Amino acid sequence: MTKFTQDMALAQHVEACGIRFAYRRFGISAYRRLGGPERLPLVFFQHFIGTLDDHDPAVSDAFAADREVILFNNAGVASSSGTVPGTIEAMARDAITFIDALGLTTIDVVGHSMGGLVAQEVALARPELVRRLVLVGTGPRGGEGIGALPAWVAELFTRKYERQEDMWLPILFAPTQTSQAAGRAYVERIITRADRDAPVSDQSIAAQRAALAAYGKHKDPSYAHLKGLELPVLVVNGSDDIVIPTINSYILQQFLPNAELILYPDAGHGAHFQYPALFVRHARIFLDD
Amino acid sequence: MTKFTQDMALAQHVEACGIRFAYRRFGISAYRRLGGPERLPLVFFQHFIGTLDDHDPAVSDAFAADREVILFNNAGVASSSGTVPGTIEAMARDAITFIDALGLTTIDVVGHSMGGLVAQEVALARPELVRRLVLVGTGPRGGEGIGALPAWVAELFTRKYERQEDMWLPILFAPTQTSQAAGRAYVERIITRADRDAPVSDQSIAAQRAALAAYGKHKDPSYAHLKGLELPVLVVNGSDDIVIPTINSYILQQFLPNAELILYPDAGHGAHFQYPALFVRHARIFLDD
Repeated sequence: MTKFTQDMALAQHVEACGIRFAYRRFGISAYRRLGGPERLPLVFFQHFIGTLDDHDPAVSDAFAADREVILFNNAGVASSSGTVPGTIEAMARDAITFIDALGLTTIDVVGHSMGGLVAQEVALARPELVRRLVLVGTGPRGGEGIGALPAWVAELFTRKYERQEDMWLPILFAPTQTSQAAGRAYVERIITRADRDAPVSDQSIAAQRAALAAYGKHKDPSYAHLKGLELPVLVVNGSDDIVIPTINSYILQQFLPNAELILYPDAGHGAHFQYPALFVRHARIFLDD
Repeated sequence: MTKFTQDMALAQHVEACGIRFAYRRFGISAYRRLGGPERLPLVFFQHFIGTLDDHDPAVSDAFAADREVILFNNAGVASSSGTVPGTIEAMARDAITFIDALGLTTIDVVGHSMGGLVAQEVALARPELVRRLVLVGTGPRGGEGIGALPAWVAELFTRKYERQEDMWLPILFAPTQTSQAAGRAYVERIITRADRDAPVSDQSIAAQRAALAAYGKHKDPSYAHLKGLELPVLVVNGSDDIVIPTINSYILQQFLPNAELILYPDAGHGAHFQYPALFVRHARIFLDD
């Protein structure tokens, strides 16, 4: 039976190269729809410390109305087995293993934050696999301040909360009344699901942190590798991203051969969670035209 | 009779403060539409050396399908009487005179290039007059390289062509096959109209050039005056604007209190003429939501 929303989608698993990947797959698949244009599955690449539960249902379910959506934990993350590798490039190889295991030959991708870095490396390594790429709150290899958080931002990731998901409020949203209210609505959306994913282990978090730091250190002011990403890219961010500074989104647009940039006001690293309906409208125009 | 497209709209005139302003007003006015939401007139502010004829019908007519569109020559420009003043702020006062003369109390605005500078000053001087503002290929007062064109760009504005409208190809479009092809399509659209507007006099061009140079020299790295523009703003540009460098669009987004930024790939100073359908979709989402 086709599941149309994330909350109806049970966790599934697929095994490849010794890794058991956990994923959720839902929405209307192309062969089931009548009349409408054929659309590729849309695969979401998750951020630092993120699990299946941290994908915003307001985003994923809106896309799922007319295409398949796939959320997954990469190797070593939460309920997936295996080990988080120490580089973004190796994470990309794991992600390719997962996509290949599903038998998919062409996909569209939404990558957020660290997931956007991994998604870029997937598209570089396997250009025929990714048709269009949406990059949210992310930046280029060697970008400004990537994996080198200011102390006050790094500290935000270590705070303990009664409801731990509240950690995302100062990280993903701007310090304004409107943005924080949107953030609380996002947290309410991601905590409603009953069967929760496993948390990310401390060891996995440390490996992700090391991979981010290494990725940020590959400096090349000409960003020559971005010329290899010839696919259409939509770059999205908030006006003041404290995790991967917003200037990196501008740099991506300027150095990628075919990229559109959209920056939202009064928003931070999780701008698409703040404006889910607007983001989905913009992304649909980009993906479907 | 309501005219629905620019080519059906005869030039009209309104006189105020001793100036006879030429304008075209067309599209579906709010009181004539049945059922749809009420929309404000959309007033276009024109670029350096631009006349009524240089507005892209593919843009203006698409908006005119469900709102009124107003194109006008500011004081001293083409078929309007009067003198072009030597500052952007004075041009804004003239534009306000025109809008007041039409009896309009609230409008939406699309300002392109110099028109975007004038539109900002109108919204600063009369905040209640402008509800929403779309700024294309423009920048802030004191922005980077405003009114200080590199010699090779300044030269592009002095070239003579068999078909003079072809001057816009290297100025408004990127030096790529795709962008130049879009540019030629734009030129074909703007030359179809039979009853042509008057050209802009050399004296008026010189005054516009002086106003641009003065506006660019008002340096303030904090762009404090932009805090006074509290209305929602949509900033749009191409990836490489050689007339008002693209970084100015980023600066506008970063310093305005409530601005969204959209940058298009493979495009220059006339990005909205290159992607008229996409631009109108994006601008409609911004204006109508």
